[in-house]
Amino acid sequence: MAIVVRNTPRTALDVVDGLAELGTATVHEAQGRTGLLAARLRPIYRPARVAGNALTCEVPPGDNWSIHVAVEQARPGDVLVVTPTSPCEDGYLGDLLAESLRTHGVRGLVIDGGVRDVASLTAMAFPVWSAAICAQGTVKETPGNVQTPIVCAGALVRPGDVVVADDDGVVVVRREDAESVLATARAREENEAGKRQRLAAGELGLDIYAMHGRLAEKGLRYVDFADQR
Amino acid sequence: MAIVVRNTPRTALDVVDGLAELGTATVHEAQGRTGLLAARLRPIYRPARVAGNALTCEVPPGDNWSIHVAVEQARPGDVLVVTPTSPCEDGYLGDLLAESLRTHGVRGLVIDGGVRDVASLTAMAFPVWSAAICAQGTVKETPGNVQTPIVCAGALVRPGDVVVADDDGVVVVRREDAESVLATARAREENEAGKRQRLAAGELGLDIYAMHGRLAEKGLRYVDFADQR
Amino acid sequence: MAIVVRNTPRTALDVVDGLAELGTATVHEAQGRTGLLAARLRPIYRPARVAGNALTCEVPPGDNWSIHVAVEQARPGDVLVVTPTSPCEDGYLGDLLAESLRTHGVRGLVIDGGVRDVASLTAMAFPVWSAAICAQGTVKETPGNVQTPIVCAGALVRPGDVVVADDDGVVVVRREDAESVLATARAREENEAGKRQRLAAGELGLDIYAMHGRLAEKGLRYVDFADQR
Amino acid sequence: MAIVVRNTPRTALDVVDGLAELGTATVHEAQGRTGLLAARLRPIYRPARVAGNALTCEVPPGDNWSIHVAVEQARPGDVLVVTPTSPCEDGYLGDLLAESLRTHGVRGLVIDGGVRDVASLTAMAFPVWSAAICAQGTVKETPGNVQTPIVCAGALVRPGDVVVADDDGVVVVRREDAESVLATARAREENEAGKRQRLAAGELGLDIYAMHGRLAEKGLRYVDFADQR
Amino acid sequence: MAIVVRNTPRTALDVVDGLAELGTATVHEAQGRTGLLAARLRPIYRPARVAGNALTCEVPPGDNWSIHVAVEQARPGDVLVVTPTSPCEDGYLGDLLAESLRTHGVRGLVIDGGVRDVASLTAMAFPVWSAAICAQGTVKETPGNVQTPIVCAGALVRPGDVVVADDDGVVVVRREDAESVLATARAREENEAGKRQRLAAGELGLDIYAMHGRLAEKGLRYVDFADQR
Amino acid sequence: MAIVVRNTPRTALDVVDGLAELGTATVHEAQGRTGLLAARLRPIYRPARVAGNALTCEVPPGDNWSIHVAVEQARPGDVLVVTPTSPCEDGYLGDLLAESLRTHGVRGLVIDGGVRDVASLTAMAFPVWSAAICAQGTVKETPGNVQTPIVCAGALVRPGDVVVADDDGVVVVRREDAESVLATARAREENEAGKRQRLAAGELGLDIYAMHGRLAEKGLRYVDFADQR
Repeated sequence: MAIVVRNTPRTALDVVDGLAELGTATVHEAQGRTGLLAARLRPIYRPARVAGNALTCEVPPGDNWSIHVAVEQARPGDVLVVTPTSPCEDGYLGDLLAESLRTHGVRGLVIDGGVRDVASLTAMAFPVWSAAICAQGTVKETPGNVQTPIVCAGALVRPGDVVVADDDGVVVVRREDAESVLATARAREENEAGKRQRLAAGELGLDIYAMHGRLAEKGLRYVDFADQR
Repeated sequence: MAIVVRNTPRTALDVVDGLAELGTATVHEAQGRTGLLAARLRPIYRPARVAGNALTCEVPPGDNWSIHVAVEQARPGDVLVVTPTSPCEDGYLGDLLAESLRTHGVRGLVIDGGVRDVASLTAMAFPVWSAAICAQGTVKETPGNVQTPIVCAGALVRPGDVVVADDDGVVVVRREDAESVLATARAREENEAGKRQRLAAGELGLDIYAMHGRLAEKGLRYVDFADQR
Repeated sequence: MAIVVRNTPRTALDVVDGLAELGTATVHEAQGRTGLLAARLRPIYRPARVAGNALTCEVPPGDNWSIHVAVEQARPGDVLVVTPTSPCEDGYLGDLLAESLRTHGVRGLVIDGGVRDVASLTAMAFPVWSAAICAQGTVKETPGNVQTPIVCAGALVRPGDVVVADDDGVVVVRREDAESVLATARAREENEAGKRQRLAAGELGLDIYAMHGRLAEKGLRYVDFADQR
Repeated sequence: MAIVVRNTPRTALDVVDGLAELGTATVHEAQGRTGLLAARLRPIYRPARVAGNALTCEVPPGDNWSIHVAVEQARPGDVLVVTPTSPCEDGYLGDLLAESLRTHGVRGLVIDGGVRDVASLTAMAFPVWSAAICAQGTVKETPGNVQTPIVCAGALVRPGDVVVADDDGVVVVRREDAESVLATARAREENEAGKRQRLAAGELGLDIYAMHGRLAEKGLRYVDFADQR
Repeated sequence: MAIVVRNTPRTALDVVDGLAELGTATVHEAQGRTGLLAARLRPIYRPARVAGNALTCEVPPGDNWSIHVAVEQARPGDVLVVTPTSPCEDGYLGDLLAESLRTHGVRGLVIDGGVRDVASLTAMAFPVWSAAICAQGTVKETPGNVQTPIVCAGALVRPGDVVVADDDGVVVVRREDAESVLATARAREENEAGKRQRLAAGELGLDIYAMHGRLAEKGLRYVDFADQR
Repeated sequence: MAIVVRNTPRTALDVVDGLAELGTATVHEAQGRTGLLAARLRPIYRPARVAGNALTCEVPPGDNWSIHVAVEQARPGDVLVVTPTSPCEDGYLGDLLAESLRTHGVRGLVIDGGVRDVASLTAMAFPVWSAAICAQGTVKETPGNVQTPIVCAGALVRPGDVVVADDDGVVVVRREDAESVLATARAREENEAGKRQRLAAGELGLDIYAMHGRLAEKGLRYVDFADQR
């Protein structure tokens, strides 16, 4: 009783690529500190950075059949996002499937489960963010939903939402918000560039952000070590 | 009341080396998806790949005395496999012991505990799969069994069984099965090579494996996004 | 009601630098196997090695305000040590704050929480030992204590204690003990150098340390595999 | 920049109460094995069973201000569902807040964080499913969203969806599906009652479900222990 | 390609029952501190205590078909021991299956996975030691081995070995050793009864075991608090 | 090289008992939200509540010798606080040692490790807060420090500090602060009693604490569900 949804909408790739440049930390702040996937998802090699349209996929524990189904739905610029229906760390994807995904334009994989063949995946520079690395493969007995909204590592991901992933983790941006988040994130980035120079020159954040007054209000006191005893 | 078993049988090194070439994922499949050690065992550096005859060793929590005892039992081509008698993440092995193991022909270490001096171990290219990295060393108060059957990270390992380890994890192959598993694994590898080419050329797994009919039987339906609302 | 303690004592930098050379495993042994921080603190890149005077800082969950306050108290040769008042894996520090810390002479960060911008931190070679990597940033609502004694990852750390960190983990040495620990650790190191040569030449630890008698006393027996059945 | 959504729709209480009677395992099956919250949520006392309309609430780490805001939105028959914006195990709710929630008709709490005063909560029979028990309380510095869709312990929960919780865990049923899920679940329950009698009388599931043929197809073989050697 | 082994040997029930009386801690000591299953297995209610002949069973992740197969192999006095072939916390057993197991003489369940219907299981006093409690059920797609040797929670368990379980955990005793372990354990128990009286009368363990000399040898020193400063 | 410190100071038992009455949550708040031990320490039965003078003890992994040493230092009203020198979940204490501790006036045990015989400990109402329950016992090979300052589950505990433990966890109060913390906690308790009545009568926390203005300042907005679409 699983379904595959065809012809789902996607986000324009120039917006997607703009978000990739900015990275997860900046994008996460720019959309009001929302959309982060759980920190248990880690890149299998570093550095790695990618963004793409979410191609979503549910898999039963120990069964990767629907990933094969998902390949057929792929479009260039997608990132495959996979969530097991119950927690499972088996190796759902190896280098063969990665080869196939890449051929169909998929830029990387985000999975709240395990992967294997990570030496090959690293050699072929196919980026993966996973909850585990595990040599144990999977069967093909039960299909799961493809291109439906899913919850992956604690975040809601819908087909065509933008998935941004780098060494810091994975963030999802709603398709409807992608353009405005990109604009906000770019503004934030520029603002930080100026601050970086001042900090590198030795100015204190306390002074740049004029924090001393508010700290005093909140009750921060300075004491001397010698006076403390 | 611990024992050291001498003159345990070993697997021929050409079989061992054949299994190393194939890697854990292929070997694990080839023996019917059995023999995997728990995924908490991770290599201290990557890439790393090794196979060897299991030289087994039990250690009390926080006590590495029997590793010293094990060195004397080592033969060229062995991999040391260590399991604590209760969970302990102390650093059971450092670079001195690794030096000694290497001198006696041991190819690497698999331990469901911790190791230390990992910068040196990496520099000297002594591969280790461990459950932890920890600067805390161990004492030498209580000897444990050496070269007896042990359970390491959830798998039964007997002296002379083949231990295969790479970036995906660690698999044990029973001594009696090693030759036949090697043959099966090689056949599987060749079969995969053909598929890789077809997948890289853009063919779908769905077509190569003729999955559409069975997916329909299992109830998979395709719907259009526009029709869904 | 937080405080900042000024003019705390520090350990002389030649002692600090001597401890850095020896590394955590040796230092930990030299001070009687004490002072280790929990193994959940891992370097964000490897190899990495640093020692410094602890510049201590408490932070509420999800709030990094007091790190900004700590920058002002930094002296060249410090290592910032941060502990959340309740467990939190948010990314408390990114590359901007690292830039600022470095400009004020801070050599690295030890934090029982998360960091972000790890690709940049790696590129700028600012070493960090953290419990997590997480794109989620923090707010600036509540200041915490700076330069007071703290418990970080299970160890007591006081301002000016020496923090030694490398690929094996993090160790703290009490300011009062730093000189004597350095002497003991150096002696230990020299002793090991001799043993390394003998082990590399094939001598057994069992012989070097004359362990056979004590092993027999503890009940270790040797049996032959063939006799066992 | 948080919001409170007023006058959200709710599910009729007779449907809610029907689902409570059936329990999480049956309801989960009846809706196609979806909607389960992560198993880390456990009841603070057992047995406990409740269902209610989700009253949703986001909280920053270590900050329970928006729970106070949520009380005002409560209607009789609600269950409060709370998710921290980053993982935090502080005690977000104690007996005072529980008293207040109960007075406004709230039947229980589901929280992917911690609670405290569990002895009192148990004594007053206010059921709580939480990820932790922790004496550490929270501050009131930053409000979070109330009555917006949230992801709690890996499941999407919208205001007015039905939350069913018992000793086995917590399941969410979409408001639109609640009636049909109730019907399906009741049918399933009746079907099971008949099977229970047959099983208690000693019939084998293998016979009741006529599994022998399909097992043989899947390759199951019977061997005798004596023939195995 | 799974097998069911019929007519496996069992341990005499008077030996089994004798071990149940003594409990896991005593039995574990009596057999040289071996045979303990990992501490993640916990009873679903307390107090609970049982011993039985291991009826072993492997299950794929999320698939409990072979438990149905195992019921047919049950004999009065068995305890069902289940291990998933990869880690999975789904609810493999509910009250229907428990009813069936009990009818065929099975005394309880030990499973390195999850169970559900725990309120019913508690009410019917069917003891279970599991790694998780989870409302998510399982499918019946792939049979696993029944009555073969398995590794469960890190320990080797063979059909007919004795499984002893109580509030402290689960211990397995090899069939061949069961009688001698029972004798040793009983002797140990009697010895402890005498010591309990002396300790309850206020004698110190230090005196009963004459430890002062050996403590001094190991370097224990007594100092006075007042002299320490 | 371990030491036992004799004649350490203790806190007056009327202060200790006053703190027990108030419980951990109140005491933790009253001393500025400090002193909490990690939430992994849980009572072996509930409800349980105790306070006492800390009798501190360090143990090597898998070795409980120094607990025997500690018994001799016990005074009526003490609570034994034990920390392993590296993480270890073995069962450090069983019912014999508990019997001995009780006879010497010790009120309970707090241990960042494991205990066993929990069914007996529960029956004899000897309260224990532990990180694990485990049938595996320990050896007596290496003594550890007794009555020195230790870090237990992330908190600094000195001999004679007050340890308060209940169903919510464990808090330590510095000996010097015990009286003033008791006074503050009592005041806090009285204040809460008044609020409880008002909340039970249906008043909102938002009104009692006059939160609406500050919430608006922080940007909280109210919207209607119907207007949102």
